Amino acid sequence: MEVKCFDRATLEGILRFPGVLETVESVYRSKASGETVVWPTVTHYFDGKDAVMDIRSGYDMGNEVYGAKMLATFPHNEEKGLPAFSGILVAIDGTTGLPIGIMDASFITSMRTGAAAAIGAKALARPESETLMVVGTGRQSLFMIGALLTAFPGIRTVLCAEPLHMENAVPYAENCPAKMKEMFDIDTDGIAFLPVKDLKEATGHADIIVTITRSTAPIIMRDWVREGTHFSCIGADMEGKEEIDPAILRDAVVYADDVDQCVRAGECELAIKGGVMAEEHISGQIGEVLLGQKPGRTSEKEITVFDATGLALLDLAVAKQVVEGYEDGTKINL
Amino acid sequence: MEVKCFDRATLEGILRFPGVLETVESVYRSKASGETVVWPTVTHYFDGKDAVMDIRSGYDMGNEVYGAKMLATFPHNEEKGLPAFSGILVAIDGTTGLPIGIMDASFITSMRTGAAAAIGAKALARPESETLMVVGTGRQSLFMIGALLTAFPGIRTVLCAEPLHMENAVPYAENCPAKMKEMFDIDTDGIAFLPVKDLKEATGHADIIVTITRSTAPIIMRDWVREGTHFSCIGADMEGKEEIDPAILRDAVVYADDVDQCVRAGECELAIKGGVMAEEHISGQIGEVLLGQKPGRTSEKEITVFDATGLALLDLAVAKQVVEGYEDGTKINL
Repeated sequence: MEVKCFDRATLEGILRFPGVLETVESVYRSKASGETVVWPTVTHYFDGKDAVMDIRSGYDMGNEVYGAKMLATFPHNEEKGLPAFSGILVAIDGTTGLPIGIMDASFITSMRTGAAAAIGAKALARPESETLMVVGTGRQSLFMIGALLTAFPGIRTVLCAEPLHMENAVPYAENCPAKMKEMFDIDTDGIAFLPVKDLKEATGHADIIVTITRSTAPIIMRDWVREGTHFSCIGADMEGKEEIDPAILRDAVVYADDVDQCVRAGECELAIKGGVMAEEHISGQIGEVLLGQKPGRTSEKEITVFDATGLALLDLAVAKQVVEGYEDGTKINL
Repeated sequence: MEVKCFDRATLEGILRFPGVLETVESVYRSKASGETVVWPTVTHYFDGKDAVMDIRSGYDMGNEVYGAKMLATFPHNEEKGLPAFSGILVAIDGTTGLPIGIMDASFITSMRTGAAAAIGAKALARPESETLMVVGTGRQSLFMIGALLTAFPGIRTVLCAEPLHMENAVPYAENCPAKMKEMFDIDTDGIAFLPVKDLKEATGHADIIVTITRSTAPIIMRDWVREGTHFSCIGADMEGKEEIDPAILRDAVVYADDVDQCVRAGECELAIKGGVMAEEHISGQIGEVLLGQKPGRTSEKEITVFDATGLALLDLAVAKQVVEGYEDGTKINL
């Protein structure tokens, strides 16, 4: 059987945010319609290597694609000149069981994660939002900004915050416009990119806050947050990770990409384990809001949170889009 | 990163039983030494398609390889001229998290499954065994015969049994010598291949019996079995499958490839659920016998059973052997 293979460089040339946003939104809708299956994630920590890998898999019946994504983070690779973060994705035709695509998973993961943050915001944030704050200046954070700027053309200010080393936000914010153009072909004329010096103060100015750090303790506190703020909590995707004060979750309208997964390993995990909120406080999955089955935000004043832990379904649907839409990949026989 | 890809035809040209037997034996030893991790299997039945897929994954620390194997059985594919059984395997370097090999999984699965049956027999059957009976004449059964003939050069008679359609064993047995030569380069001069007409009688003549059917009810009954017989039970690899009378298991010395997996989905499953034997009756895993940690067979008269449900670890170790040993694969960038 012939399988199309796509490396990272090819995917970088192909994938753009408007398309990925549409795909991610369609998967969230399918999921809320019961047309998807998320299989249990396998996670393994490598003793003594400071490394972790996971295997996420699922089946999107709407798109008739299933498969698995295997991601690995091996920080010591950089000492050997190898990528610290890598991944491979296998997409299989749900009508035949035959593989249709094999591709680098790192770029797709970044793109669909940015898109997830943006779709969560589109569903829950105030539509007139003008000020975005992105907390975290790692490589993933640029994808958050690119996706949010695509979903919210009205954004005029992007606050860039690096909670561990505040000063790193200065060069980061300076480079942002060039990066947006280079990576996503996004023009940022008329948008101010500002480094955050005082996280408390900046929090009070933001309409939308995306958290994308590796934090294991709250970075943003409840009493810093003004009414009407939306959070897309992206960084907390494994047990023990936490980015915002559990009291924010307690006082907010909360939706998840997948409720069980967020309870187990998302931003909600520690808030629930700590007894600050009950599992039932999660209103549902984001797809229910997109389908109009659940209300989402019901007033200008509510704080809203979208807790996303990541779904292989998103990657698989993007992979199918790539396989069907492009001939650029290398073809191999398997 | 560069990844080597191997299709089925290339693998058929590369893999031979002596090598695969050695690899499978080494993995069983590693597993018994605690140097492997078997991650939970994901299984999915496709409603209305009569189809099933599974994702098996694990980590072999001895060989420093981890990864996943995705197998699919879509019987209706044959109506479309597509393979009913297919699979893909991704092998990843355990020291870097980077993929090293992507390959067709169907041929490797067949080879390592034959090798598993043979290694189980090597560990538990009487070494002077001369008569092999293979129950089942599906495509997998030829791999059983090839592997057993390799592990037991003293075998003089191969009894071929097809429990559902006895008469099918006649052409099967006739074709066996040519198939052994063609598929595995095995000469069968001096070996008689005989179709089984009376399964009860044939059972009483066999030294080693390999069961490789899709049966969900016992095919071989306890009182047909003579002292000293060894069984390698291969066909029962999912819940609800069963090939031999639970009373055989009750009266035998039983080892598993993986105890938990065999209790959940192997030949032992229904014997335990039916209350015929206790889980504790399983003496341990086959690697413990290979390492000399457990006795295995202790007399000429004992009946022994090796229950194998299949381990992705075997496939991954074979895949690593392929990637390291051969340049024949197509190289792709990922």
